[in-house]
Amino acid sequence: MRGRFITMEGGEGAGKSTMMERVADWLGQSGYRVVQTREPGGTVLAEKLRDILLDRNNLSISGKAELLLMFAARAQHLDEVIRPALERGDWVLCDRFTDATWAYQGGGRGLPGEDIAVLETLVHGDLQPDLTLLLDLPVEQGLKRASRRSAADRFEMEPHGFFEQVRQAYLDRAAAAPERFVVIDAAPAVEEVWSRIRSALQERLGA
Amino acid sequence: MRGRFITMEGGEGAGKSTMMERVADWLGQSGYRVVQTREPGGTVLAEKLRDILLDRNNLSISGKAELLLMFAARAQHLDEVIRPALERGDWVLCDRFTDATWAYQGGGRGLPGEDIAVLETLVHGDLQPDLTLLLDLPVEQGLKRASRRSAADRFEMEPHGFFEQVRQAYLDRAAAAPERFVVIDAAPAVEEVWSRIRSALQERLGA
Repeated sequence: MRGRFITMEGGEGAGKSTMMERVADWLGQSGYRVVQTREPGGTVLAEKLRDILLDRNNLSISGKAELLLMFAARAQHLDEVIRPALERGDWVLCDRFTDATWAYQGGGRGLPGEDIAVLETLVHGDLQPDLTLLLDLPVEQGLKRASRRSAADRFEMEPHGFFEQVRQAYLDRAAAAPERFVVIDAAPAVEEVWSRIRSALQERLGA
Repeated sequence: MRGRFITMEGGEGAGKSTMMERVADWLGQSGYRVVQTREPGGTVLAEKLRDILLDRNNLSISGKAELLLMFAARAQHLDEVIRPALERGDWVLCDRFTDATWAYQGGGRGLPGEDIAVLETLVHGDLQPDLTLLLDLPVEQGLKRASRRSAADRFEMEPHGFFEQVRQAYLDRAAAAPERFVVIDAAPAVEEVWSRIRSALQERLGA
């Protein structure tokens, strides 16, 4: 039986990494084989592209080139990791996927939705996540958390307004596809957030 | 006045580099400001992508990822180099452009033409070369010349049949757009090939 495809989305400092681990552990304990991966990245090629995309010294990347690089990394990730895993019955848990492109390149950078839609169709028109967990947090709070963690990458150097647009685009995506999305308030303590995510896994996927 | 956009195409060992220099010198002597560039490449980002695409150790690049990387590099090249140059009136002389994608990824790899067309429209639907010089040579002869020059890159490691498909796709492109293409037989001696290219520049662009 084909595995399930779960994506975790959210802005800076929303706690995705912590919750990724919890979800992977939970699914593993429930007897599912889990492939935990991330975007951009997840393959040798795509991690090279991630380095280029996040390197704050690479300031000369046009919006359209960035968009195409994201989908190039995604195409490789799908071919090499995601599709084979789902086909052999593993569950795939991915830190960011195409909703992040809608949020960052669409919302944040203001690139036309029709360009993103064309590339989404080209690269994975036939495959969408079964469940997308969106960790939502006010921008101010997320950036404060993120800044305590590490130096800013090329995206984290953007001004405040960029992240407001990212957050809004994420919420718009969720509202447009409620059957796929669960929006989780990421402000409460870790155990509370995790309890809500666990409920979502049970209700949506029976996991 | 907007400058002219000239592309040079052809398979391995067809003599593009030599002819690029001749064309650039000729146009310069005729008083045009010439920007000489290449694809994939021509900008810091795109040269990084070129390194990835040509590195023979990167065998794990899917056809679709390769296609998207080519257009990512091209988007940056257009934004950063080609469009600004043409707008300030310079002539742009580019070693390979989208016809090479049709030849290598379309003909050679067999990727669907509709995918290439979608990306071409997305990245430069409004801009096409004014003149494309296609240096045509039997595959056997080209590969022999190329192998004397340097170690094989990721493309040059492909089997003979790949290059036959590349050549045929180039010739098909030329036949479909005779108003833009001039096919030059690259088998004769350098001076003879150059004389034909010079004639094409004069007849097609008055240069």
